Amino acid sequence: MTLRDVPQPVCGPSDVLIEVRHAGVCGTDLHIWEWDSWASTRMRPPVIVGHEFAGRIAALGAEARAGGLLEEGDLVTAEGHIVCGHCLQCRTGNAHLCQRTQVIGVDRDGAFAEYIVMPASNVMKLDGIPTEIGAIMDPLGNAVHTVLEGEVAGSTVLVIGCGPIGCFAVGVARAAGASLVIASDYNARRLDIARCMGAHVLLNPASDDVVARAHELTNGNGVDLVCEMSGHPAGHAQAFAAARLGGRVNLLGTPSRPTEVHFARDVIFKGLTLYGVTGRKMYGTWDQMRRFLRAGQLDPRPVLTHRFPLEQIADAIQVIKEGEAGKVILEIGA
Amino acid sequence: MTLRDVPQPVCGPSDVLIEVRHAGVCGTDLHIWEWDSWASTRMRPPVIVGHEFAGRIAALGAEARAGGLLEEGDLVTAEGHIVCGHCLQCRTGNAHLCQRTQVIGVDRDGAFAEYIVMPASNVMKLDGIPTEIGAIMDPLGNAVHTVLEGEVAGSTVLVIGCGPIGCFAVGVARAAGASLVIASDYNARRLDIARCMGAHVLLNPASDDVVARAHELTNGNGVDLVCEMSGHPAGHAQAFAAARLGGRVNLLGTPSRPTEVHFARDVIFKGLTLYGVTGRKMYGTWDQMRRFLRAGQLDPRPVLTHRFPLEQIADAIQVIKEGEAGKVILEIGA
Amino acid sequence: MTLRDVPQPVCGPSDVLIEVRHAGVCGTDLHIWEWDSWASTRMRPPVIVGHEFAGRIAALGAEARAGGLLEEGDLVTAEGHIVCGHCLQCRTGNAHLCQRTQVIGVDRDGAFAEYIVMPASNVMKLDGIPTEIGAIMDPLGNAVHTVLEGEVAGSTVLVIGCGPIGCFAVGVARAAGASLVIASDYNARRLDIARCMGAHVLLNPASDDVVARAHELTNGNGVDLVCEMSGHPAGHAQAFAAARLGGRVNLLGTPSRPTEVHFARDVIFKGLTLYGVTGRKMYGTWDQMRRFLRAGQLDPRPVLTHRFPLEQIADAIQVIKEGEAGKVILEIGA
Amino acid sequence: MTLRDVPQPVCGPSDVLIEVRHAGVCGTDLHIWEWDSWASTRMRPPVIVGHEFAGRIAALGAEARAGGLLEEGDLVTAEGHIVCGHCLQCRTGNAHLCQRTQVIGVDRDGAFAEYIVMPASNVMKLDGIPTEIGAIMDPLGNAVHTVLEGEVAGSTVLVIGCGPIGCFAVGVARAAGASLVIASDYNARRLDIARCMGAHVLLNPASDDVVARAHELTNGNGVDLVCEMSGHPAGHAQAFAAARLGGRVNLLGTPSRPTEVHFARDVIFKGLTLYGVTGRKMYGTWDQMRRFLRAGQLDPRPVLTHRFPLEQIADAIQVIKEGEAGKVILEIGA
Repeated sequence: MTLRDVPQPVCGPSDVLIEVRHAGVCGTDLHIWEWDSWASTRMRPPVIVGHEFAGRIAALGAEARAGGLLEEGDLVTAEGHIVCGHCLQCRTGNAHLCQRTQVIGVDRDGAFAEYIVMPASNVMKLDGIPTEIGAIMDPLGNAVHTVLEGEVAGSTVLVIGCGPIGCFAVGVARAAGASLVIASDYNARRLDIARCMGAHVLLNPASDDVVARAHELTNGNGVDLVCEMSGHPAGHAQAFAAARLGGRVNLLGTPSRPTEVHFARDVIFKGLTLYGVTGRKMYGTWDQMRRFLRAGQLDPRPVLTHRFPLEQIADAIQVIKEGEAGKVILEIGA
Repeated sequence: MTLRDVPQPVCGPSDVLIEVRHAGVCGTDLHIWEWDSWASTRMRPPVIVGHEFAGRIAALGAEARAGGLLEEGDLVTAEGHIVCGHCLQCRTGNAHLCQRTQVIGVDRDGAFAEYIVMPASNVMKLDGIPTEIGAIMDPLGNAVHTVLEGEVAGSTVLVIGCGPIGCFAVGVARAAGASLVIASDYNARRLDIARCMGAHVLLNPASDDVVARAHELTNGNGVDLVCEMSGHPAGHAQAFAAARLGGRVNLLGTPSRPTEVHFARDVIFKGLTLYGVTGRKMYGTWDQMRRFLRAGQLDPRPVLTHRFPLEQIADAIQVIKEGEAGKVILEIGA
Repeated sequence: MTLRDVPQPVCGPSDVLIEVRHAGVCGTDLHIWEWDSWASTRMRPPVIVGHEFAGRIAALGAEARAGGLLEEGDLVTAEGHIVCGHCLQCRTGNAHLCQRTQVIGVDRDGAFAEYIVMPASNVMKLDGIPTEIGAIMDPLGNAVHTVLEGEVAGSTVLVIGCGPIGCFAVGVARAAGASLVIASDYNARRLDIARCMGAHVLLNPASDDVVARAHELTNGNGVDLVCEMSGHPAGHAQAFAAARLGGRVNLLGTPSRPTEVHFARDVIFKGLTLYGVTGRKMYGTWDQMRRFLRAGQLDPRPVLTHRFPLEQIADAIQVIKEGEAGKVILEIGA
Repeated sequence: MTLRDVPQPVCGPSDVLIEVRHAGVCGTDLHIWEWDSWASTRMRPPVIVGHEFAGRIAALGAEARAGGLLEEGDLVTAEGHIVCGHCLQCRTGNAHLCQRTQVIGVDRDGAFAEYIVMPASNVMKLDGIPTEIGAIMDPLGNAVHTVLEGEVAGSTVLVIGCGPIGCFAVGVARAAGASLVIASDYNARRLDIARCMGAHVLLNPASDDVVARAHELTNGNGVDLVCEMSGHPAGHAQAFAAARLGGRVNLLGTPSRPTEVHFARDVIFKGLTLYGVTGRKMYGTWDQMRRFLRAGQLDPRPVLTHRFPLEQIADAIQVIKEGEAGKVILEIGA
C-alpha cells in the first residue's frame, strides 16, 4: 500500500462524485496491508483501498441530478456494496447477498482518497449526522443488522467479541430495548469500551465462565440472542451453549478455520436458529441506523478511539494490529 | 424389551384413558431395543415403550370430561411430549422446547400396550382420519414442522435423507405449494417412496453430485430450503453448499458425531439461516397437519410399508434395521 | 354494586387461592357500576366484580401444588381471561381470542374481594414487582400487546387517546426503542401523565392539527405506528391519515358506534395494516411486560394517580367518571 | 380515446425499448374510456393508455445493455409502477408504495401501442412464459400479493368478488396449498371461471348466505383469510363477519364510497388483521408468480376469455362493460 497521486475518478450519468472527509479503517484493510492469502487471491491491484467513508457531494451525473434528491454540497455516506439489481437476491429483498456484488476498496476503487465516485442509489444523506460518524456507518450497520435480526425489546443479549462491531452491537441492543446486555472479550480495554456503550455485565473468558455466567444472569434460562462477533471456534461453542432453548445465534465474526459443531446437542435439541450476517440490509438497516443516530438513541463515539491524517495510515494500521484500538478514523478532507 | 401383562394405567382427573389401535415404530424404539448408550443413560426401566399411536377413548377423568370436547368412543391420537406449561418456553409459544418435557415411551409409560393414559390437553381428535394414519402423526408432524418453518409456496426444496420423516417432508412440501422438490438418499427403495410422495427429482449421492445437480435444477441459484434429515456430516456439508444465498437449512436428522462447519464460507457469507427442529409445535403443527390430511392434500400411505401385530415387534424392529422399510406399524387393538 | 360478606371461594385441584392485596379499577367496572346495556346483557349477577389484581397465594390445589412452581406465600398476579385450551385459537397461539373465554369479574367471580380463586395456569409470579404494580399488569399488558405488535425500535409512534392504557403505551414504546413518541388527547391532565411516561411531543386536538403535526414531525412521511386508544371515529380518521404509506394502525379503543372508513383512500392505496387488539397474548405479552418491569425499563407509576380502600369504591368510580384520573387502585389486603 | 400514429418513443441510457405483442385491458382503462372524475382529475392527456403488456426487446440503452442480463429479442413483461428508489418506502422494501410512483398508461405513456420504453429495472424476462400470459402478470401479481400476504398452506380462503383478479386469487390460493377455497360472486359466468381456477365451493349472495356458509364450511370457526376483491361495502361486511377470530382480511377491491365499520365488534374483539393491497411487491411478488407459472402450478388461462386486435379496442371495452368477460387481451404485435 502506497500513497500516490491518481487522476480524479470519472462521474458517470447515474453517479455521484464525493469529496471524502472521514474514512474508517477496517480489519479488511489490515488483510490488504498484510497482503495475506485472501487479499492476494481476491484483489487485482492497483486499487484504491477503503470502504468506510463520508464526505461532501462535489458533482452529480445527469440522471443522478434528475432524481432530485441529492445536490452538490450534501454531506453523505454510502453503502459500499455495489449490487446488480437483477439477481434473485436483489429482486427479493436480499441485495446484501447479491450474486454480483462489487465491494469498493476491494473490487473497485475505494475511499482512502480525496474523491470517490459512487452510484447515486448507494448514497445516503447524513441529515445532520457528523461525517466522522457517517464514516463508520458501514461497520455500525453490520452491528445493526446483527442485533435487529431477532426480537430485541425486553431480551437478554450476549455479545461475544468486543472489537468495534461488537461494541457497536452493545449500543444497538440497548437502543432497541434489550433488558440485559452481556459483553465478553479477553481484552480489558475493549470491555471498557463495551461498558461505555451500555453493557450491563462484562465478562472476560480468561477469568469468567461465560456460559455459566450467562445462565446465572438469566434465571437459568440462557440468553435470548447471542451476537457472535469473535469468529473463533471457542466463541461458537460458547454461543451455542449460552443460548436458551429456542434462542438465536447471529454470526458475524468470520473464522479462518472450521468449527466442530455437535448439531444434535447444540442446535437441534435446543431448537436454535442460527443466522449468518453479511453486510447491511439494503436499505432497511441504513434507515434504522439513521433513525437511532438522529434521535440520539445510539452514540457510537466511545468506540472511536483514534484519528490520523491519511498520510499516517501506517500508524493507523499499527494501532489496530496492537489490538488496543476501537475504531480508527482517517481524516482526509476539510 | 419383553411383552408382559401389566395393570391397566390409572386415569387422573385431567387425563384420558385410550385403548390403543395402531402404533408406529420409530428409530428411538430401535435405540431402546439395542439398549445403546443413549437408552441406558436416559431411561429407568421398567417403562412401556412406544410414543406414536392412535386409538379410542375408553374413559375420561372428571376435569377432562368437564372440558366437554372429548368423549368416550372418540378416535384420537396424542402429542407424546408432556410439558410443564410454566417455563419460559411453554409461556412463549415454544412448548415443544419445554425445559421439563417428559416423553411417553421414554420417560414414562408409552403406547406399545393395550391402554395408555394421556393428559387431555395432549389429545387430538382424528375427525375422520383413520387410526393407522393417526398413529404416525408424531413423525409426520416432525416433517410438517421442518418444512413449514420457512416459506414454501413457489420454493425449491431439497430433502436430504429419505427415511420415513424425509419422505413425509417431500409430501408436505408438495402440499404446501413447493415448485420443485428434490429428494436425495443412497437407498433406491427409499427414493422410490420419495417419488410416490411427490418428489420431482431423485438423487443418489452414490452416483449423483447432489450439490451440482441442486444448482443446475435451480438455474444456478441453489435451493431455497434444505431439509436435512440424514444426520450425517456429509449431509450437512451438502445442505450448506446446496442452499442458495439467503436460503434456509432446517435440521432434523440427529447426528451422533460432530460436523466440521466452515462458518465464514458456509453460513456467514451465504447469509444462511439454520434452524434446529425438535418435536412438533404445540399445537400449530398438529392443526396444519390435520388440515392437510383431512383435505386430502397429503397422503402419507406410500410411506407405510409394513404392519405387524404387537406380538411380532421383534420382526418389526428387524425390518427397520435392514433399512428397507418405510414406516412400520404395530396393530394392537381392534 | 354493593359490598357484602360472601363465603370464601373453593379452591379446585388445579386452582390457586389468592389473598388480594391491590386491585385496579377499569372502565369495564364503570360500565357495570352504571349497569348500562352492555353490562345488563352480558352479566348474570350476583358476580364479584374486578379483573385487575395482585396478591399472595394462600392455598393451592393438589395438582397446582404438584406443578412445583407456585408456593404458598408467593406474590402473584393473574391473567383474567380463562380459556378453554382446546379451540382452534387456543391451539394455535391465539388463546387471547379463545372461543370460550370467561372473564373474571364479568363472567365469573372477580377480584374486588379478599380472596379469589384462579386456575394455576393463569397465575404469574411477581418476582419482586410490587403488588400495586402487579395489580395493573392487565391493562399494562393491553398496552404492551398494542405497541409490540409491530416493529418499534427506531420507529415513530402516535398514541391517540391518553387514558391509562394510552399512557402505558407511551412508556412501552419508549422502552422498546421508539425514536419518536407523539401523544394526543383533549385532556391536559392526561397529556401531563403521557409526558411523564416519556412522550416526546404532546398534541391536543382542540388546538393542534394532529395529522398535520404528525407529518411535520416525521419529515413528511407520517408515522410508522399508530396506537388508537380513543375508540372515537375521529381518532380512527386521524389514525388512518397520520400513518405513513405502509404503516400500521393497532386498534384497542372500543368504539360504541360505527366509523365511516374510506377503504380505498385510507387503507388500500396506503398499503396500511390494521390490527384489532384483544387482551394480552398468553403468555408472551406477560413475559415481555415482566422483563421490562424487572429491568426498570418501564415504570408505570406516573399513571397510578389514586388509591382508595375497597370500602370507598364509590369514590374510586367517581374520580374515573370525572375524567381526571389515571389508573385508580383499590387497597384490599395488607 | 383514439387510435393514432405517434413517434416511436426514445430509449434512454437505462431504458429498454419493447415491441408490444399482447396487452391486457383493465378496469382502469375503462375509467379512462369513460373519462370519469378520477380520470379527468388524475390524467393530463395526450397519454398512451394501457399498463398490462408483454413483448420483445427491440433495443437497449447503453447502461441497460451493460447490465448484461437483458438482450435484444428477449421476450419480457414489466412492472408498470415506476418508482423513485430513494423514498422511505423504496428504501425499506415497500417500493410498491413509493411516494413518487408513476404509473404507465396513466401518468406516462403506456402499452396500447406498437412500442413502449421502460426502465431496465422494471423489465422481467418471461423465460418461456407465453406473451399472452406475460401480458396479464400485472393483475395476476395483484392476486399473488393479496393471497400470499398471510399464511395460506392448509388455510381456508374466501374470495369475495370474482372479477379477473378474484379468479386469479382462487388459483393462487390453490397453488399455495390452501385446503379450502370458497368463491363468491353474483355473476354465474364469473363463478364458473372461479370453479375452473380451482374453487372448491361457489357461493352466490343472491341465493346463499355467504357468512353462514363460510362458518358451516369451516366447522363453525370462520375462514382464515378473506380476499376482498369486490370493493363493495357489503363485501366488507361479509369479510369481517366471515373471518375467524384472529383471521385476516386482505383488501384489494377499491370502493368508491365509504363503508361503515363497527370496529369493536368486527375488528377489535375478533383480533382481525386488515391489509390494504396496492400493486405488486417489487419484486418478490414477480418472483413468486414466475415460479408458479413456470412450474405449472398456476394456470391463468381460464380467466382469459376474450381477444381483440388493438383496432377493436371499443369492442374490448364493451365486453368488459357488459360484465360477462374475464380478462380481455389486445393482440398488438406478431
